Amino acid sequence: MSVLIVGSTALDSIKTATKENPKLLGGSASHAAVAASFFAPVNMVGAVGHDFPKKYIQLYRKHGINLDGLQSLDGTTFHWSGEYAADMNHRRTLSTELGVFEGFTPHLPDSYRDSEFVLLANIAPSIQMHVLEQVKNPKFVVADTMDLWLNIALPDLLRLLKRVDAFVLNDSEARQLTDERNMVVALKKIHRLGPKYVIIKKGEHGSILSGPDGLFLAPAVPIQKVVDPTGAGDSFVGGLLGYLATQNGQIEKNLRKAVVVGSVVASFCCEGFGLSRTTKTTRVMIDDRCKLVERLTKF
Amino acid sequence: MSVLIVGSTALDSIKTATKENPKLLGGSASHAAVAASFFAPVNMVGAVGHDFPKKYIQLYRKHGINLDGLQSLDGTTFHWSGEYAADMNHRRTLSTELGVFEGFTPHLPDSYRDSEFVLLANIAPSIQMHVLEQVKNPKFVVADTMDLWLNIALPDLLRLLKRVDAFVLNDSEARQLTDERNMVVALKKIHRLGPKYVIIKKGEHGSILSGPDGLFLAPAVPIQKVVDPTGAGDSFVGGLLGYLATQNGQIEKNLRKAVVVGSVVASFCCEGFGLSRTTKTTRVMIDDRCKLVERLTKF
Repeated sequence: MSVLIVGSTALDSIKTATKENPKLLGGSASHAAVAASFFAPVNMVGAVGHDFPKKYIQLYRKHGINLDGLQSLDGTTFHWSGEYAADMNHRRTLSTELGVFEGFTPHLPDSYRDSEFVLLANIAPSIQMHVLEQVKNPKFVVADTMDLWLNIALPDLLRLLKRVDAFVLNDSEARQLTDERNMVVALKKIHRLGPKYVIIKKGEHGSILSGPDGLFLAPAVPIQKVVDPTGAGDSFVGGLLGYLATQNGQIEKNLRKAVVVGSVVASFCCEGFGLSRTTKTTRVMIDDRCKLVERLTKF
Repeated sequence: MSVLIVGSTALDSIKTATKENPKLLGGSASHAAVAASFFAPVNMVGAVGHDFPKKYIQLYRKHGINLDGLQSLDGTTFHWSGEYAADMNHRRTLSTELGVFEGFTPHLPDSYRDSEFVLLANIAPSIQMHVLEQVKNPKFVVADTMDLWLNIALPDLLRLLKRVDAFVLNDSEARQLTDERNMVVALKKIHRLGPKYVIIKKGEHGSILSGPDGLFLAPAVPIQKVVDPTGAGDSFVGGLLGYLATQNGQIEKNLRKAVVVGSVVASFCCEGFGLSRTTKTTRVMIDDRCKLVERLTKF
């Protein structure tokens, strides 16, 4: 079963204490699509400008990503530039140039409209909604977000939340959205906004899945060197939904493993700049790390 | 198999955003001893002053704690006073009056010297060492600590670490001790200081056990209302060693479950001021919550 993914397709310039990397392939849709591609065929929705390097188009194609929904527009590609502190835990945005995403309203190719698994990766909630409305009969819809949309587009986001099956956000966003520090209480408040499933990402501390079957506590894969966490959250949801789309049986039955798969793909993402490590990952490597998570948590 | 526990026996005055509680029963030995008492007979080592309430002695006795090693000394009981921020995640010490712990050098009763399981709960490393040296042939020794000793008694602590089987500390202490943010790397550095097993406590984010069998990632039990986290770490090590002392077979085999048991007892501790909730807990409640942790982590 293929996965429809909408999100940003971007160039990321990432500065760390030791290295500067200009114009890497980035954006939530790029990370999520590559992550999902290990499991399912991906139909990507996004927009790039005239400056988008051909090699990045080739990279998408190498991962079998369907680009019928990737629009080439007049103007420049979305460009994000950020800097990480030495502890890799805090980052600040140096600049954001929306470029072709300014006023972008994606029109879905007909072949995308029958998609059953839909990932509304991090992008303006109005664009997420616009895409969702063009899908005929989705079976499972996941939305991701970021603090920016809580700040400047909360009404749009709240409207969207009534339409999605699962909502993914990180712990600081959950605190911001609910004004509640305790995650057990915050989860209950977020369910009341609509989503049947809520997943809170806690970075190196793992994630919490909440649904009708209660909570599932997933660890993050312990890694020795975090090179660049940019895109880890996008890889998480991409891997999660890519895996889910290919499993038989009820969603409930597969969602816990899907969260572990997402964490594993995210761990690979953190081990290299941009998509450099993720694109060198294989399905076998992912399966091995899932088995590792089993060994790390059994008692 | 009984457990020898040395640590502070104190009166804690705890202030939160909503409540003030003067002179509750506190101290690392008190919390650890009550936690361990759900599993094993406890031999406690500590010191109290003339102002130590009789009802607290009765509480110890109610939990079957052997007080032959609890000295009643001239002077006042160790008194700690602290205040928690509204988020319950940050606390500041308002005052510390050592009282009878000033210059305390515990002399072990003969009946304690054959102890096989020894918990050096949080107290000055010189006192921990002094107790350990009086134990004839310990089978498993766990040491806990706090940032204060890293600041003012690091040489003593480093000497102690060469003599213990397991060392327990929290993540910020691990960072301070190793000057390393990444916990995987920090763990390796701490092993090099001596302990075969290292356990890093991460509060609401659970704990990491590191040993010859690799890592074990244990979640914290999600609780809706943290009333007072004072003593949670002490309850963790107390529950852990109490459980371990009563299990057959190799330490390695039982240590993961022991970490879960410790987390569970710590979660009860957080649900009430001082020892108020822990003392109302039963073995059945602990077992139930251990089963909950299994359900929360299975995939």
